[in-house]
Amino acid sequence: MKLHYFDWAATAPISEQALYTYHKVAKEYPGNPSSLHKEGQRSAKRLAAEREKTADLLQVAPEQIYYTAGGTESNSIVLNSLLWKRKPGRIIFSGLEHSSILQYRHFLETKGFEVISIRSPGGFVDIEALQENLTDNTQLVCVMLVNNILGTVQDLTSIAKILRQRAKPIHLHCDAVQAVGKISFNLSDLDVDSASFSAHKFQGPRGTGILYQKSNTLQSLSRGGGQEQGLRSGTEHLAAIAAMNSALEETVSHLEQRLEKGNQLRTMFEAELEKFPLVTLLSPSINSGAPVTPFVLSLAVKNLPAEVFTRILFDKGFCVSSGSACSSNSPHNKRGGLFLEAGFTDEQASSSIRISFTSQTSEEQIRALGQTIGEEALHLHTLLRK
Amino acid sequence: MKLHYFDWAATAPISEQALYTYHKVAKEYPGNPSSLHKEGQRSAKRLAAEREKTADLLQVAPEQIYYTAGGTESNSIVLNSLLWKRKPGRIIFSGLEHSSILQYRHFLETKGFEVISIRSPGGFVDIEALQENLTDNTQLVCVMLVNNILGTVQDLTSIAKILRQRAKPIHLHCDAVQAVGKISFNLSDLDVDSASFSAHKFQGPRGTGILYQKSNTLQSLSRGGGQEQGLRSGTEHLAAIAAMNSALEETVSHLEQRLEKGNQLRTMFEAELEKFPLVTLLSPSINSGAPVTPFVLSLAVKNLPAEVFTRILFDKGFCVSSGSACSSNSPHNKRGGLFLEAGFTDEQASSSIRISFTSQTSEEQIRALGQTIGEEALHLHTLLRK
Repeated sequence: MKLHYFDWAATAPISEQALYTYHKVAKEYPGNPSSLHKEGQRSAKRLAAEREKTADLLQVAPEQIYYTAGGTESNSIVLNSLLWKRKPGRIIFSGLEHSSILQYRHFLETKGFEVISIRSPGGFVDIEALQENLTDNTQLVCVMLVNNILGTVQDLTSIAKILRQRAKPIHLHCDAVQAVGKISFNLSDLDVDSASFSAHKFQGPRGTGILYQKSNTLQSLSRGGGQEQGLRSGTEHLAAIAAMNSALEETVSHLEQRLEKGNQLRTMFEAELEKFPLVTLLSPSINSGAPVTPFVLSLAVKNLPAEVFTRILFDKGFCVSSGSACSSNSPHNKRGGLFLEAGFTDEQASSSIRISFTSQTSEEQIRALGQTIGEEALHLHTLLRK
Repeated sequence: MKLHYFDWAATAPISEQALYTYHKVAKEYPGNPSSLHKEGQRSAKRLAAEREKTADLLQVAPEQIYYTAGGTESNSIVLNSLLWKRKPGRIIFSGLEHSSILQYRHFLETKGFEVISIRSPGGFVDIEALQENLTDNTQLVCVMLVNNILGTVQDLTSIAKILRQRAKPIHLHCDAVQAVGKISFNLSDLDVDSASFSAHKFQGPRGTGILYQKSNTLQSLSRGGGQEQGLRSGTEHLAAIAAMNSALEETVSHLEQRLEKGNQLRTMFEAELEKFPLVTLLSPSINSGAPVTPFVLSLAVKNLPAEVFTRILFDKGFCVSSGSACSSNSPHNKRGGLFLEAGFTDEQASSSIRISFTSQTSEEQIRALGQTIGEEALHLHTLLRK
């Protein structure tokens, strides 16, 4: 049976180009960039060239780019940096954050920090509520750029503007893991202090990511071997970094066309779903004018638990998700938490399914998924009524 | 000019087999192991199979294996785990530790821990001194298995025995990054509580490592997405993990023959050096009976700073190292620190050169390096005397 992959937000298959680059660079650069001999210096030079390429593609400066093991580690570096504070203060999370940020709450509270979550109705952080919660001892605000479940896009620029008006500087961190290739954005314009990226979300290798830092304010718990300006030590995975850049280049080139294709596919999908009143779109409609990516959406099927319905879709060859992949390992599923924060009902939360795709997804696949969801929903409801 | 690579302790080129495995697994397993659909579950199954393979090769249990981004991160997880302690206590480092451990000192001291370094004459930790420094509030002891500069091997089993006699349990962590393929050891017999490994030191991919944990005592600062039993979150880099296992399998198979070849090469190299009295072996001789790996050694060239002499060797096509690669990024070179701990003079420290090789190194290469070192040392001394 042919599988229809609709779980691009969980992970995207590595691109041919990225895999080719990995292979080539792994073979051609055997030296450690920290070694002073020829092989080492060749690797160091290539690493510097890759950093310039990343910076160019993200429209920032090379010295603002730090390579990490992925989005989770990038987020960790920012949160761990708080441990250098002389006095623990207030930390503010939007109600939309990924588990790699949310799960820090317990540790931070143990260390005396006050962690506050800001309600985010419909998947948009309430900026007024955020503003009201800012205090003189607020040290960090975390707001995700593109939500991994609802696909909603946060207005980071406005949030940054509010934070910049405060007398005491507050670090604004942005988990931008789901943003690359899913929306058009300019990292400098967002005016955040730091941002996280993960290669495997845009067809790069796994275990590879970026931490962007506007100016040199974060501090690692340890300098270790001193790599990445002392912020993230460990021998650099040059082949994976180069492969990530290949994927990044592919992704950001022709982005406008890709987004247009995404909008078409999304519109088509929503039109399919509208035929079936048992299915509710939880994400804003792509045509509502609300800021969303076309490529990620959640829907709920009336009275059918997501665990049951996703299994039926799996059997039909559709790879979709109930909640985010990262929440499936957790003892308490955070999907419910996100939907609660977003103002949905318990019932909607428990029957929510996430669909994520790409501009490479075909119209046939999108239509087939919409029809299958609608028809299976009808079929199951008929069965249940008997 | 053909390069002769003598910096295997800094990084080893990825093996053909490992690179082939990376390519194959990256292509064949596009799913996220945390996703519940078919593609995800296929990846999860492969990940479980890889974990069993790693465990088999290291002769431990699969649930004791945690995949990380490398040796530095494995060490960090252990050190960060201390931050959950209700009261900061005493932490003991051998005088031989890698910068990824040593550099934690400042942070730990800021948090109220007392960090003690144990003298390690000749590159062997003084076990009596270690014993004398154990207190009821000692929480962690870190002892490296194979030293990355001198190649000396520590008696972890004896150290573990001493620690086990204490009324209060003390966590014994072992940085075993330089051990795989360089000595024969049984991880269970070492009786350490945790150990770190790094794939690129044994011809696996960079950015990939293992944390072994005997029983479930360590705790991450955050569960994140809950991967790796909540100890190390982030989407698993399955292709790199499988590639690491390929390299690990190659490395541990026929280890005895490899070590025998290593002993031959080392003996040959030492015989070459003996012809040149200006050159002093800082590491114990392979034939001294002292526990050392044949594959890593340091030497000093009388009155010649390592920075000068390594450059001459670079120009002759030899890739060697002055200190460890990881220390070349640090503002204060830790090489000096290690040699001081080991009881060498400042002069010996500043003229020390590290040679590291593998069983694949040829006799011709080993002889050529020995001769070149000796002859260039003579030549330079003649020039300096003029």
